[in-house]
Amino acid sequence: MISIVLASGGMDSCVTTAIAAQESQLALLHVSYGQRTEQREALAFSAVADHYRVERRLLTSIAYLTQIGGSSLTDHSIDVTEADLESKEIPSSYVPFRNTHLLAIATSWAEVIGAERIYIGAVAEDSSGYPDCRPAYYKAFSDLIEVGTRPGTKIEVVTPIIHLRKSEIVRLGVELGAPLHLTWSCYRSSDLPCGKCDSCALRLRGFREAALTDPLRYVED
Amino acid sequence: MISIVLASGGMDSCVTTAIAAQESQLALLHVSYGQRTEQREALAFSAVADHYRVERRLLTSIAYLTQIGGSSLTDHSIDVTEADLESKEIPSSYVPFRNTHLLAIATSWAEVIGAERIYIGAVAEDSSGYPDCRPAYYKAFSDLIEVGTRPGTKIEVVTPIIHLRKSEIVRLGVELGAPLHLTWSCYRSSDLPCGKCDSCALRLRGFREAALTDPLRYVED
Repeated sequence: MISIVLASGGMDSCVTTAIAAQESQLALLHVSYGQRTEQREALAFSAVADHYRVERRLLTSIAYLTQIGGSSLTDHSIDVTEADLESKEIPSSYVPFRNTHLLAIATSWAEVIGAERIYIGAVAEDSSGYPDCRPAYYKAFSDLIEVGTRPGTKIEVVTPIIHLRKSEIVRLGVELGAPLHLTWSCYRSSDLPCGKCDSCALRLRGFREAALTDPLRYVED
Repeated sequence: MISIVLASGGMDSCVTTAIAAQESQLALLHVSYGQRTEQREALAFSAVADHYRVERRLLTSIAYLTQIGGSSLTDHSIDVTEADLESKEIPSSYVPFRNTHLLAIATSWAEVIGAERIYIGAVAEDSSGYPDCRPAYYKAFSDLIEVGTRPGTKIEVVTPIIHLRKSEIVRLGVELGAPLHLTWSCYRSSDLPCGKCDSCALRLRGFREAALTDPLRYVED
C-alpha cells in the first residue's frame, strides 16, 4: 500500500512519517506557502525524506497564499507574536483554510499514483486552536474525497497523532526512532529557532513535559 | 455583500458572473493550472472582468497540477480526445480533484476579504461527468467550510447553473447580457476554437439547442 504523508519538515509530521513508514510505502509531499521560514522547512523535509530513503517525493508551492494574506506567516507586515498557550483565541499565525489546500494536493496526487492513504500530523487539543486541525474537519474532508473523486476511488485521511499531547508525540517519536534532530518548527527564524513563537513554545513544552531534551539548539541557549 | 466568482474565462462562469452581478459586489478569481490554453483563458477572464468593471481580482496559479499529471489538460503527453458526449466514461480531460483546489483558494480569499458567497459555474447533468461537478460534492464542500474556518464565518457555495442544460445557460446568458463573445471554451487551441474537444462540443450543442449562433468563429467555419 502506498501512503502519502504531508511532511512540513516539522516534528509532528516527522513522527507521523515514522508511523506511516511502519505500515506502508511512503510518498512524501511538501508544500511551501510563502511562509517566512519556507526554505529552512524544505531543507528539513529533504533531510527527513533522505533519512527514510523515500524516492517518491513531491515538492510544491502554494505561494498564492501570500497574495491572499490574512496571516502573520504569509503577510510579512504582520508580526509573528510570542506564544500565549493559555489563550483561547486563534493566533495571528492562522493561515485561513490552509490545510484544505494541502489535502487537495495530496488527494489529486493520491488519485494519480494510486495511494490509499493520506497521513497528516494534525494535532487538535494541544495546539494553537486552528479550526482546520480538529477531527470534525478531517471527517468532512474524507466525505469530500468520497464524492469528489472518480467512482471506486478509496482514499482515507489518517490523523494518527490528532489526540496526542505534544509530550506524547515527542515520546512516540523517540520510541520509533524518528529523526527529530533533523526537523524544524520555528515560525520566525531560519538559523537558530527563536524559542518564543507559538510553534517553538509548543515544541519546547512537549519536550519539557516528556522530560526529554530537544536536540535543537535555541537562540537563548 | 461581496461574492467571489470563480471565473475561468469560459461561458459557464461568464453566465455565473452575470447572475452574481445582479445580487452582489463582485470579486473575481481566476486560477490557471498549467492547462494547454491557460493564456487564452486568462485573456478571456480579463475581458469579462473589464466588462463588469470589477476591480477586486485575484489571478493565481496551481501549476503544480502539471507535476501531478493524470489529465490530458495538464499532462501534455496525453492527447485531448475528440468529444463523445454519449459516453458514460469520465473523459481524459478530468483533472483529479481540481475543483477542490479552486474552492480552497476561494474560501481562503473569502475569509480574508469577508466575502459571504462563492459562486461557481459547475454544470452537473449536461456536462462531461466530472465527479467534482455534482451537487453532492458542493454540499460536502459547504460542510467542510463550516468546520474548517474561523468560528462565526459564514461562506456559502452557490452553484446557480448546476441543474441547467447548456442550451438554457446560453439563453440565460443572452437574457442577462453576459458577454459571451469574450469567453473562451476550447481545451485544445488558443487561436480559433477547435470545435471538436469536449468543451467545444458541449458549447456548440448548447447554442444549437438554444437555436442561437455562437459569436465565436471556429476552425471549420
